[in-house]
Amino acid sequence: MAKGKGQKRPKAETPKGFRDYFGTEVSARKAMLDKIAAVYHRYGFDALETSAVETVEALGKFLPDVDRPNEGVFAWEEDGDWLALRYDLTAPLARVAAQYRNDLPTPYRRYAMGPVWRNEKPGPGRFRQFYQCDADTVGAASVAADAEICAMLADALEEVGIPRGDYVIRVNNRKVLNGLLEKLGGDFRPATSEDAELAKVWDRGIEDAILRTADKFDKVGEQGVIELLTAGRKDASGAFIDGVGLSISNANSVLSFLTSRADTNSQTIVNLRNVVGDSKVGLEGVTELEEIAALLEAQGYGPDRIIIDPSVVRGLGYYTGPVYEAELTFEIKDEKGRPRQFGSVAGGGRYDDLVKRFTGQTVPATGVSIGVDRLLAALAAKGRLEDKAQGPVVVTVMDRNRMADYMGMVRDLRAARIRAEMYLGNPKNFGNQLKYADKRGSPVAIIQGEDEAARGVVQVKDLILGAKLAQDASLEEWKSQPAQVEVPLAEMVATVREIMGRHG
Amino acid sequence: MAKGKGQKRPKAETPKGFRDYFGTEVSARKAMLDKIAAVYHRYGFDALETSAVETVEALGKFLPDVDRPNEGVFAWEEDGDWLALRYDLTAPLARVAAQYRNDLPTPYRRYAMGPVWRNEKPGPGRFRQFYQCDADTVGAASVAADAEICAMLADALEEVGIPRGDYVIRVNNRKVLNGLLEKLGGDFRPATSEDAELAKVWDRGIEDAILRTADKFDKVGEQGVIELLTAGRKDASGAFIDGVGLSISNANSVLSFLTSRADTNSQTIVNLRNVVGDSKVGLEGVTELEEIAALLEAQGYGPDRIIIDPSVVRGLGYYTGPVYEAELTFEIKDEKGRPRQFGSVAGGGRYDDLVKRFTGQTVPATGVSIGVDRLLAALAAKGRLEDKAQGPVVVTVMDRNRMADYMGMVRDLRAARIRAEMYLGNPKNFGNQLKYADKRGSPVAIIQGEDEAARGVVQVKDLILGAKLAQDASLEEWKSQPAQVEVPLAEMVATVREIMGRHG
Repeated sequence: MAKGKGQKRPKAETPKGFRDYFGTEVSARKAMLDKIAAVYHRYGFDALETSAVETVEALGKFLPDVDRPNEGVFAWEEDGDWLALRYDLTAPLARVAAQYRNDLPTPYRRYAMGPVWRNEKPGPGRFRQFYQCDADTVGAASVAADAEICAMLADALEEVGIPRGDYVIRVNNRKVLNGLLEKLGGDFRPATSEDAELAKVWDRGIEDAILRTADKFDKVGEQGVIELLTAGRKDASGAFIDGVGLSISNANSVLSFLTSRADTNSQTIVNLRNVVGDSKVGLEGVTELEEIAALLEAQGYGPDRIIIDPSVVRGLGYYTGPVYEAELTFEIKDEKGRPRQFGSVAGGGRYDDLVKRFTGQTVPATGVSIGVDRLLAALAAKGRLEDKAQGPVVVTVMDRNRMADYMGMVRDLRAARIRAEMYLGNPKNFGNQLKYADKRGSPVAIIQGEDEAARGVVQVKDLILGAKLAQDASLEEWKSQPAQVEVPLAEMVATVREIMGRHG
Repeated sequence: MAKGKGQKRPKAETPKGFRDYFGTEVSARKAMLDKIAAVYHRYGFDALETSAVETVEALGKFLPDVDRPNEGVFAWEEDGDWLALRYDLTAPLARVAAQYRNDLPTPYRRYAMGPVWRNEKPGPGRFRQFYQCDADTVGAASVAADAEICAMLADALEEVGIPRGDYVIRVNNRKVLNGLLEKLGGDFRPATSEDAELAKVWDRGIEDAILRTADKFDKVGEQGVIELLTAGRKDASGAFIDGVGLSISNANSVLSFLTSRADTNSQTIVNLRNVVGDSKVGLEGVTELEEIAALLEAQGYGPDRIIIDPSVVRGLGYYTGPVYEAELTFEIKDEKGRPRQFGSVAGGGRYDDLVKRFTGQTVPATGVSIGVDRLLAALAAKGRLEDKAQGPVVVTVMDRNRMADYMGMVRDLRAARIRAEMYLGNPKNFGNQLKYADKRGSPVAIIQGEDEAARGVVQVKDLILGAKLAQDASLEEWKSQPAQVEVPLAEMVATVREIMGRHG
């Protein structure tokens, strides 16, 4: 295949579905993660960093998003072992909790932040590597652990710059849904499935279908949900979506579950008690929600921040108890310029079965995962991210033989903790040096030619003011160079500092 | 293979050659990288984060360690494309520099930190995923760029806690070695290779052999190097190592190159000029070293920190101009308790051909890579790492029905920026709660039983003092509980703060 000496050049391309992050894209994310880590740490969580690679065996198939069953992992064989890139931070935690169970404190409380990989079709804004930022408590059965994570999530959002009022944490409980399913009872199963095993499969299938349908509540509304739960409905495009096949009466029960949220958490609890009737598991779920709400309210996390909301069903199939979701309530414009709510930026819940895979023993666990890119997008939408980093002060090179002098200026600036560099490209074309400074977003350029050197002075050029003048003012004004001052070399650092202070 | 319902449990194991990092292992590395990033940033470098995955095509085969030619990558096929995990941060930089060449500033100065993956046999302390921390200037032909990176490396080492005097940056130049090879001239090639093409292959082979031999200088000494360059020698185990086959006269020339380092950089330069004779490329290399030394000395980086040292040949095969290496000069004990120098923690140099693979155009580039784990080990050896993180203040649970009160105490502590948590495990056994606090390294435990609650007080238990007393004092003294005080609830935060302040 190779054509002798005329070797083909490799393509300089990011692999499909992956991307590169430059400058402030990296530092803005880092700054946000640092703030979240500080909150997690203050709450008593310890850092954990597992490697990107796990055995496929340990990873298992626990992808939480039921809507995307074909979602896969990047896997390969290595000396007979199948290895894979982690697809989330929870599966490695389950492995760690099992592997080190005799050494770790109980409960084990850890936070983790880092990239995860999904082998799925890339789409606009959807990448195959992205960051997650999780905190989990493993080995705590008490719903106080769930309540605490809800409070911590609220604190983390405020810490990174989402003001109170702009977010809400919604809490629900998988057990309440189980109670509902129990109550739906006999006629919930299709008549054809008389065999008990088959009925179980049906139950699970119907349950998943209900969850998926309920998840569309926001989009299709009450009537839409009833249609989807019973005979089916036409979607906006005219395509017919098959219904779940429930009776109208059962569909109405599901709907009253989904709409049981009231103005106060205590009224919601009352409504939910009615929905689950005498189902034991259902009542257990309602009691847990009541406890969570009480614990949170006692700490000052009232319904302005955290509410019981039975319409939260996202990921319920994965969880075994309380689930929670952080939603940003302010509006942004969608791609067509229409206002819409920003939506979910974090979610989590209780998953008591994950460690059991390894050890056979149920280990109660609960945790949250923040969608790092979503939250960054939210901060950008709120104008809370620095959009452009300040470039370095550029010391230009007027005389190739005096590089040591220019390097000395750079040293003095850096010693004063001012970001600075000497122009390191080909200095022949002076215009290129200023273009470079402009491209870097440099606030100031330093110029010292032969004449200035002889007089022991430097020109300090205010590039930010210069750019403004170039836009707004006539060439004549520019020529008077108000944006450039000549100062003795010994005053260079102070002058630069003053100019930078002026621009904030 | 699967046995029906009796499914085998997956093993909870880190894949071979990978490891997990807990608590302070994560935070100590992060703290060190943050400090290095701040230095890189102050020098004008911008952050870049590429994804872990690259196409095999873009990655190429540029592993710098000539001693380990079988070293590979983790690669797999995906929809007809071969993908791989990056093995360093330089290959992705070369891809980025080529891919975005029309948009990036010239020079492009970036730093990057993150894990890289090597598919090599794991060994003690050698892992298949480890961190690198690089800074490179792409598009600057001037050796001022190399000099700057040497200065920055010195600053970074001091910033993380390696004091001046405990490190030295050694600088050499690939071109000087090329000059030496040129000077060795005719009789350097074995007589059998008359064909010009074959002679080239021989040249390259001998050159590599010389580089590898020179690299062993520290281990085998002058006589050993002469033997290895000529007929061969027996190593410590008695095994015979084949020699390179040079004449004694040529071997002596190589040796005088390797030993040309003098007390001052200027004397070393004089020695090197003698070694390269009238070789054009050799003289170019010597002049570059002279320029680098002059630029650095003008900025105050004298031979106490940065020295010209021709014995630095590590990775020379990969580089095209100046090379540099940071060595820590303090002694540590090896595994047998013998003192030895700590050795190299960072290295880099000029590699003008990497971007050319993609574009066909030579792009001058130079950069450094810090061995993150090595540097962390060095800081640990110097006692510069916090070995144990302070755990959270643990609010114990004496009464299950008063969780909301305990959570309120935790909230107050956290609001005062004190790391704190309520015990979330099963509270039945109070001893387990204190064992948990001990395992977490908690400084303080808070206790409030029925009696204390009725009186509006809490017990504040100084666990650090308590542990000391348990070790040093008699049981009698312990019983007097000097490590536990009762205070009104309103004074809890102040008391905790005072105790923590007392222990620093």
